[in-house]
Amino acid sequence: MTSQNPSSPSSADPASPSPIKLFGICGSLRKKSLNRMLLQAAQELLPDGVELSLNELHEIPLYNQDVFDAGLPDGVKAFRDGIAASDGILVASPEYNYSISGVLKNAIDWASRPPSPPLHDKPLGILGASPGMLGTVRGQLALRQVCIFTNMIPMNKPEFMMSGAPAKFDQEGKLIDEESKKKLRDFLTAFATFTRRLKQK
Amino acid sequence: MTSQNPSSPSSADPASPSPIKLFGICGSLRKKSLNRMLLQAAQELLPDGVELSLNELHEIPLYNQDVFDAGLPDGVKAFRDGIAASDGILVASPEYNYSISGVLKNAIDWASRPPSPPLHDKPLGILGASPGMLGTVRGQLALRQVCIFTNMIPMNKPEFMMSGAPAKFDQEGKLIDEESKKKLRDFLTAFATFTRRLKQK
Amino acid sequence: MTSQNPSSPSSADPASPSPIKLFGICGSLRKKSLNRMLLQAAQELLPDGVELSLNELHEIPLYNQDVFDAGLPDGVKAFRDGIAASDGILVASPEYNYSISGVLKNAIDWASRPPSPPLHDKPLGILGASPGMLGTVRGQLALRQVCIFTNMIPMNKPEFMMSGAPAKFDQEGKLIDEESKKKLRDFLTAFATFTRRLKQK
Amino acid sequence: MTSQNPSSPSSADPASPSPIKLFGICGSLRKKSLNRMLLQAAQELLPDGVELSLNELHEIPLYNQDVFDAGLPDGVKAFRDGIAASDGILVASPEYNYSISGVLKNAIDWASRPPSPPLHDKPLGILGASPGMLGTVRGQLALRQVCIFTNMIPMNKPEFMMSGAPAKFDQEGKLIDEESKKKLRDFLTAFATFTRRLKQK
Repeated sequence: MTSQNPSSPSSADPASPSPIKLFGICGSLRKKSLNRMLLQAAQELLPDGVELSLNELHEIPLYNQDVFDAGLPDGVKAFRDGIAASDGILVASPEYNYSISGVLKNAIDWASRPPSPPLHDKPLGILGASPGMLGTVRGQLALRQVCIFTNMIPMNKPEFMMSGAPAKFDQEGKLIDEESKKKLRDFLTAFATFTRRLKQK
Repeated sequence: MTSQNPSSPSSADPASPSPIKLFGICGSLRKKSLNRMLLQAAQELLPDGVELSLNELHEIPLYNQDVFDAGLPDGVKAFRDGIAASDGILVASPEYNYSISGVLKNAIDWASRPPSPPLHDKPLGILGASPGMLGTVRGQLALRQVCIFTNMIPMNKPEFMMSGAPAKFDQEGKLIDEESKKKLRDFLTAFATFTRRLKQK
Repeated sequence: MTSQNPSSPSSADPASPSPIKLFGICGSLRKKSLNRMLLQAAQELLPDGVELSLNELHEIPLYNQDVFDAGLPDGVKAFRDGIAASDGILVASPEYNYSISGVLKNAIDWASRPPSPPLHDKPLGILGASPGMLGTVRGQLALRQVCIFTNMIPMNKPEFMMSGAPAKFDQEGKLIDEESKKKLRDFLTAFATFTRRLKQK
Repeated sequence: MTSQNPSSPSSADPASPSPIKLFGICGSLRKKSLNRMLLQAAQELLPDGVELSLNELHEIPLYNQDVFDAGLPDGVKAFRDGIAASDGILVASPEYNYSISGVLKNAIDWASRPPSPPLHDKPLGILGASPGMLGTVRGQLALRQVCIFTNMIPMNKPEFMMSGAPAKFDQEGKLIDEESKKKLRDFLTAFATFTRRLKQK
């Protein structure tokens, strides 16, 4: 997990919004994932007082209730604890077969189990980048269906779907498309407001 | 993989329907999975000329395109080959978080990749068993959305959703509820017809 | 439109929650609609400080953009104005063909159009009653998909699905099933809290 | 209803495919509907032996079971009879609020009722045109969910979603974009094959 905390304001300053921590999840495991690049770009574009960690799913094994009952694997425990300590969740997932990645769904399955399921009542921001024209739109719908039982509260608007994504990052994976930067910044600002509204911060 | 082949008819017999092979997938990894019991019950209730294998997902690792590009893991290769050799697919999956299990979605992600994606044009039968009252209805909807891009052809009717499932199996996991047996037999008969219709067998 | 206002608390009383107005919509037109009965039962079970109107869709014509551009039909204008003046929306719709009724979807289409689309940012509570066992579960999922663009904010939990509904009302359409009454009261209490949370009331 | 029958082949010609009749439905009522233009374009691009009628929904009233029970309105009767007499259904609907139009859903509700629901077992082709970039993708998903209970069999591939549609038609509503024409012709050819496969024609 890498974290990024851009000069969070002192809580003593009455003019500053309260600090919030977002738990970022990349739904892909591959090294050159467009969705990881997108989360890294988000870390550079955060509004004041917002912190965003970037979390990987490599250490979340296949969900098996027998394993769950025998004791949480370390990777799962860290994942659940990180979510629990956050004010909101930011997911960036590829769309596979008109849904979210099985890897992401599997991680959510681990995180959704009682006791104290950490996803409960968390604001959710949904990002997606794809090479094609439709920018993960169907995967985002599938993720929203997963929110109901887990009781994540997904932001409706703005939505963020980046199509033609490979051309919008440079060789080092840095976001270079100015329009996308603006949209992403606006999304993050709206999501910070949404999170504070739900958390009364 | 265990297989069951109830006296398949000779292809020389003009009165017999052509034999078909179904590839059964259990979406849960736990030992006492209700959905595995359901597939085992299905193996006992097959119409003449239908064979059903029962396949596990323990050896399908988390999907990672980098791994895919480096060469298929053995478990994935066997999974894809088994699907390719079948006439139709029968899935029984628990519903987790109003969708299919991440474990099942992950396996489908591996199976959906070119070249020669084996799911293409396969008839799909959907089964589900749950302890609660709604019998995986939302998970089944989520699976249907996955059929479009993968080009599996799901049977619409009859649907099969078993609610209150724990009471319908005995200690050894054998289906003992007569009404459920009848529904399952009817489902399998309809799915054999659906598969033959699509395969012109 | 009929309205019901059970002894709303004086706003001068600091111990009382602020009053909220809910706009109830019945998705069926038939006289003996189970979902209308359900909304009428809700009117009897409201928490303190909550008002619920019951609105019909008979006067909402088929949506036609040419008509919209020529001027809003009276029924549509009243429908939009009523929603705009409310703090939250309560929908009870039958499930037709695994979705909401076309009649309800049609009314939402009228209400979603700019300028000042009244659905925007409204908390949404979803109720459903059906004769069968699944209690409109799939229709409720379909309605949630409609919330994204319209920017209604659906409550996740508790959900309310009444199965076997005809036996739970008497000849006059009055809810007589005590367990259902309790669930409905709990749902309404949770929805009032959800609405106040979003509206900061 | 207007129909178009491009030199249907004699059934005596063994080399010709059997003739099939498609029932086209436009999900919008407005005069300058892009989706109607799309169906009209389809009528010009039909493969040999395929006939496509174009049907409007202006005469389908709001669904009301009391009205249904009292006797089918003429418009509904004609709609149901037309579907029943067809070999397959071709729908072109705008996307409203991430779903199909309420007008279309309402018509489907009328057509889905017993006795002898005409939608049963009909192959379904889904078209959509939109001014925006996403070309009705979410509405098409919503329509697929409606297929399950009604038992329409939707073709998976190819999909047809026309984005940026207004620029692709001329002032008279004629499709002038060559790439779209090719895609539409390919779609219709695939759908004719799909229909014949299911109907064994």
